[in-house]
Amino acid sequence: MDTQAAIGIDFGGTTIKSAIVEKGVVLQRGAIIDTQGVGDSTALITALEREIAHLRAQHGNIVALGIGLPGLVDSAGGIVHRLSNVPGWTDVPLRDLLRRRTGLAAMIENDANAMAYGEWKYGAARDGTNVVCITLGTGVGGGLILNGELYRGSNLGAGEVGQMSIDLRGRPGNYGNLGALEKYVGNVQITERAHAFYARSAEPRDLGRCTPAELSTAARAGDPIALGIWQEVGTEIGAALASVVWLLNPDAIVIGGGIANAGELVFEPIRRTIAERTISVLSEELNIVPAQLGNDAGIIGSAELALDTAR
Amino acid sequence: MDTQAAIGIDFGGTTIKSAIVEKGVVLQRGAIIDTQGVGDSTALITALEREIAHLRAQHGNIVALGIGLPGLVDSAGGIVHRLSNVPGWTDVPLRDLLRRRTGLAAMIENDANAMAYGEWKYGAARDGTNVVCITLGTGVGGGLILNGELYRGSNLGAGEVGQMSIDLRGRPGNYGNLGALEKYVGNVQITERAHAFYARSAEPRDLGRCTPAELSTAARAGDPIALGIWQEVGTEIGAALASVVWLLNPDAIVIGGGIANAGELVFEPIRRTIAERTISVLSEELNIVPAQLGNDAGIIGSAELALDTAR
Repeated sequence: MDTQAAIGIDFGGTTIKSAIVEKGVVLQRGAIIDTQGVGDSTALITALEREIAHLRAQHGNIVALGIGLPGLVDSAGGIVHRLSNVPGWTDVPLRDLLRRRTGLAAMIENDANAMAYGEWKYGAARDGTNVVCITLGTGVGGGLILNGELYRGSNLGAGEVGQMSIDLRGRPGNYGNLGALEKYVGNVQITERAHAFYARSAEPRDLGRCTPAELSTAARAGDPIALGIWQEVGTEIGAALASVVWLLNPDAIVIGGGIANAGELVFEPIRRTIAERTISVLSEELNIVPAQLGNDAGIIGSAELALDTAR
Repeated sequence: MDTQAAIGIDFGGTTIKSAIVEKGVVLQRGAIIDTQGVGDSTALITALEREIAHLRAQHGNIVALGIGLPGLVDSAGGIVHRLSNVPGWTDVPLRDLLRRRTGLAAMIENDANAMAYGEWKYGAARDGTNVVCITLGTGVGGGLILNGELYRGSNLGAGEVGQMSIDLRGRPGNYGNLGALEKYVGNVQITERAHAFYARSAEPRDLGRCTPAELSTAARAGDPIALGIWQEVGTEIGAALASVVWLLNPDAIVIGGGIANAGELVFEPIRRTIAERTISVLSEELNIVPAQLGNDAGIIGSAELALDTAR
């Protein structure tokens, strides 16, 4: 008999990716679905079903199905309350719909939680007991593993590191907090900050040359403005994480998302800031590491969560 | 047969209080020991033993002994690494010493964790699943109950809400963090802030009339400076707690310690700030409540933790 496998689905605002996952390894990928191009939620669910059937035909022992979605997801009740950047998903009982239509043990989860679960079970934080996982991109998301379990919070809303404040009188975040971290270190904010710095310099750059990827290239070539920006961004991320460390005393912090591609340019100031702003008992054994599963973290995490929940 | 009872001990920087506790109720108190007046750790442990023997003579079924201590306490290994404000306690294997000398199932714990445990089992947060407990006094301490268990963190250092930052460029805290909450809302800081405000007013006050207790009295009499200070203090505490809520999505926040005696003067701005800076799914079902066990939280929590650990 084949080892038990699951289908993991990463439901993003732009694309939906799926794959067969066995023991944390992607065996076979499904076709990519265009999230915005297929139609309403009913049409999308039908497209998902088709992809699921296609994947099942290629493996003999698929027993579960997990989906990570960006938004307010009630994993206990199986309801998608609403999705960020995808209209038409209001209180959709997605888990039970898929259970009925596929006969698989289905599971839905917030995408950041699914990624944290993947990185914890098979990625950068394997064997961790208390793990904080953040993703740095357009926004800043997060998921928590505490006492060796996915921690969801009382209303399944925990882990929002991007909404934590670094300045009680700072910039308003999208959800009401002043000084919300993601209003400083989101992609757009980094780009705008760089643009403003270069505008005051001898070599102004247009916005397209101020993206995080361009800033990494420039910094690696020794550009002092780009180097300075990564120091600032890393210090701000580190300041927020220092508060997380004082509160949760984790053994690992996993950092993923596009910004993490800046590598040591951003990891160095993050590590330094956390070490400076906490004490050795909290920081010395703390691993601050890049995510390992890359774009597959959501697929792998969703699949494994579905398998573990079905067991 | 009597119900099983435990001795709970609240080891403070000034006094050590003990009592017999049964089902969360203090049955009988021991004599208060002067923490600084007895001598070194050996002398203090002997004094504790005497008090324990005295209490045991008064109840037929004492099976456990719990001590909450202010400092770095390894509850798993039973070692007191060091105590805040009490010299001479370096790596004392207190739990095993007491086990050997008393024959009781002994347990040691950080005092803020013990208080959180007490408030969760028998106080303001009974039946909570995810509870954040903070104490506002000279410093700001905290303890966490997550997924229905005391959460200690990877190095037993979790829960330090007072060291979380409200301003990444703010005042340096005692342990390295910039903008550490307790450097704004500790007793001394509140007093100094009030003193500075009154100094610029038509009615300056000396420091002795700027204590939190005096400010409560003045605010209740309508004094606008005192009212304004409580608003500021509550906003700062609320700002830190809003970040905690984004990260942990708890169902209850319990607030104790001397500052909490200001009652609605400080609870109103705390509640308002958290509601303004989070979203309804996180704040609407969140109970923000005063501690109920008062000065007995540490005694009750230590005793119950010892009983539950022994079971």
